[in-house]
Amino acid sequence: MEQSPTQALAQYIVNSRPEDLPSSVRHESKRALLHWLACSIGGSRHPCVLSALSALDEFSGKRECALLGRAERVDALLAALINGISADALGFTDTHLKTVIHPGGVIGPAILPLAERMTVPGSDFLHAFSLGMEVACRLGLVVYPWHYERGWHITGTAGVVGAAAAVARLLRLDEKHTVWALGLAVTQAAGLREMFGSMTKSFHMGRAAQGGLVAGLLARHDYTSSEKAIEAPRGFAHVLGEDPDLGALTRDLGVTFEIMQNTYKPFPCGIVVHPAADGCIALATKHDLDAAEIQQVTLRVHPLVLELCGRKSPSTTGEAKLSVFHSAAMSLLTRRLTLSEYEPDMVNRVDVVELRSRIRVFPDSSIREDEADLRVMLRSGTELHHHVDHAIGSAARPMSDADIEAKAYGLTEGVLSRSQSEEMMNACWSIEHQPRAGILAELGSVRASG
Amino acid sequence: MEQSPTQALAQYIVNSRPEDLPSSVRHESKRALLHWLACSIGGSRHPCVLSALSALDEFSGKRECALLGRAERVDALLAALINGISADALGFTDTHLKTVIHPGGVIGPAILPLAERMTVPGSDFLHAFSLGMEVACRLGLVVYPWHYERGWHITGTAGVVGAAAAVARLLRLDEKHTVWALGLAVTQAAGLREMFGSMTKSFHMGRAAQGGLVAGLLARHDYTSSEKAIEAPRGFAHVLGEDPDLGALTRDLGVTFEIMQNTYKPFPCGIVVHPAADGCIALATKHDLDAAEIQQVTLRVHPLVLELCGRKSPSTTGEAKLSVFHSAAMSLLTRRLTLSEYEPDMVNRVDVVELRSRIRVFPDSSIREDEADLRVMLRSGTELHHHVDHAIGSAARPMSDADIEAKAYGLTEGVLSRSQSEEMMNACWSIEHQPRAGILAELGSVRASG
Repeated sequence: MEQSPTQALAQYIVNSRPEDLPSSVRHESKRALLHWLACSIGGSRHPCVLSALSALDEFSGKRECALLGRAERVDALLAALINGISADALGFTDTHLKTVIHPGGVIGPAILPLAERMTVPGSDFLHAFSLGMEVACRLGLVVYPWHYERGWHITGTAGVVGAAAAVARLLRLDEKHTVWALGLAVTQAAGLREMFGSMTKSFHMGRAAQGGLVAGLLARHDYTSSEKAIEAPRGFAHVLGEDPDLGALTRDLGVTFEIMQNTYKPFPCGIVVHPAADGCIALATKHDLDAAEIQQVTLRVHPLVLELCGRKSPSTTGEAKLSVFHSAAMSLLTRRLTLSEYEPDMVNRVDVVELRSRIRVFPDSSIREDEADLRVMLRSGTELHHHVDHAIGSAARPMSDADIEAKAYGLTEGVLSRSQSEEMMNACWSIEHQPRAGILAELGSVRASG
Repeated sequence: MEQSPTQALAQYIVNSRPEDLPSSVRHESKRALLHWLACSIGGSRHPCVLSALSALDEFSGKRECALLGRAERVDALLAALINGISADALGFTDTHLKTVIHPGGVIGPAILPLAERMTVPGSDFLHAFSLGMEVACRLGLVVYPWHYERGWHITGTAGVVGAAAAVARLLRLDEKHTVWALGLAVTQAAGLREMFGSMTKSFHMGRAAQGGLVAGLLARHDYTSSEKAIEAPRGFAHVLGEDPDLGALTRDLGVTFEIMQNTYKPFPCGIVVHPAADGCIALATKHDLDAAEIQQVTLRVHPLVLELCGRKSPSTTGEAKLSVFHSAAMSLLTRRLTLSEYEPDMVNRVDVVELRSRIRVFPDSSIREDEADLRVMLRSGTELHHHVDHAIGSAARPMSDADIEAKAYGLTEGVLSRSQSEEMMNACWSIEHQPRAGILAELGSVRASG
């Protein structure tokens, strides 16, 4: 009998074993896991986290789960929501480039609370995390690009289903119940791109994580759902997609892994700006450049850069992150691009404003998205040139483990002690040997003093 | 300056006063309120309620809110979810015929928990309920029918926004915060028709109620959102609709009221079957018919009847509710159509099966959806005829207050005592004079014995 795509997916989720995943996949999963934890910790003091927590904390049930980067404890459902919101708060999450899904910050928050309530071996946790990432990205491929262009925030819509897959696996649901969990998640698929620019964008991650957790819990208690939620005429693929590629759901499932296409943003600004920033840092470093010597900077970039990040005179953090001018100026000045480079003081500093005015940016359709070309004319008359073939963080030039660790330290700085951060990162790298995955929540949250 | 539709809607929500609603609208709101409470009470022992409660009760926070028809208490967010699920569990909810939205069971559950936590005068509660109904139905009109045909369960998608409107009003949010609440709700719009036939359909109502409540609570705590969530190119109307009628949102707002188009199902079966059932009950009653005397029944009905409810030999409750044959047979036999007529014992009783076999149903495209024509040939050779011009419960022949009360008693029977049910219904009819709307939750739930 022909198996439906939803059922085939459920069967894979149920039957896959940790050791079935190639070591490269397991390693990439650890990178994504560590990266997400650091993003949530870094985002844990963002106003959107504070707002959500102040609105909903009074409804919390048993306070048995940690909030990353924070000292409060809340119930599992609220933890999933808040840890998802914090993951995206700084706009610094991972990206599956083929679908622009940010998977880590949805899948992780959905299952971490379970690992705190049950004894979950680290290897099982990593495996469930990996399966959830795979399901989210494959479901994204079914409907991308029409779905995203239509206006769906694909991280929210595909994310909730990946989250449910990870939860179902961790709860050890059988095939029938996993199918129901997927159905319960599919029917919660939501999130509109119109929300970009407001706190509600980050809400999508949290609500998807929480929705996936709710879906798995309900299914475990025999809450029934559709058995062909993804492929039915009035199911996910045909309602939220157009001419969907249903084959993408199970094609080479267990053989090729979408997590291998996951990337990490080295800089906290719009991703299209990264090649220019990368080049400016490299050039300034190589020539030990004094910014005061700069007469003019000329950047040739992919046309999307000016379309998405063309703000010439930003005055706020949010605007500066969408400004190639500010990002290039800061890269030349400080030779790095961390959150500090986007603080309001920095954005409005006189020498920064002045340097921005000396930068010219030209769109060039012969330049790829991960490429940039830059020329710096010095007051002395010397011209410096640098060409970025593939920006750091792109698929062709991924961040190394050390790069990810460095980024993670930057995110946890000021929230956790350096030694606690180090302990947490070590627990990630060695997660397959940890007897209790819940240790990640302990190490990722602020410990009660005393 | 041109006001955006979302802002205009928010402004109306903020500025409307209870006394601005015509008395007919307030009365219809009371009918919808009473009807929803009875539906939730009747559905409170359904397996989907038991399943959801067993899955999620352990995460409940402060147990300050009632579950309709039940004795347990849970936190406000869980109460919204469960009271929404129970509202739909029996498939017996109200229907705004122009959009097929079932609004009462989403709007009511979203705000009842607030009325238990705050002192909300009954008149304010009814007003917020009425506004929520209006917003849900108007948003439905913006995207109907494309939206529903595409596969969206419009009760879930439009419902969450109506729920947020009611919550925002009850929390007395200002215009800016109401706009955010609407945005936070819009981005949660979800629910697929593929789920019909499984418990997940009822989950849509609960999740929409809960999502609307969460949206209002977040907005109150300055969680920001889009300011043109409904009309923006990547907002609700254009992503979940096609060629939307944005004008429907605010056209004659405060002048015409969609709640006046709300209807109530007199019978717990597919709505297309109602004219035939109505006719069979009327004919059997008028002629004091003995079913054993029936030779043959001939029904002429709208073509949708056989398309949606053509099952000849149902064997389960669910199948029987979608069978015009069973519904007609029972109407002739017992001269009523309550939940008892769909119990498995009744569906499989020998004389019922036999009578079903003597019923012939003919589609007739000259018959309207709320019309039916029936002829009963008796063994004596006498032919009886009855024509239903407008079925009971249709827009042209709405259920009277007494009809709704009778239905409500049928739903609360066996859950609440007759005297408690009566007290609850009286509290609904007199809600505008009740100092505390929370009394509805007390009267609608099972009191601790003692």
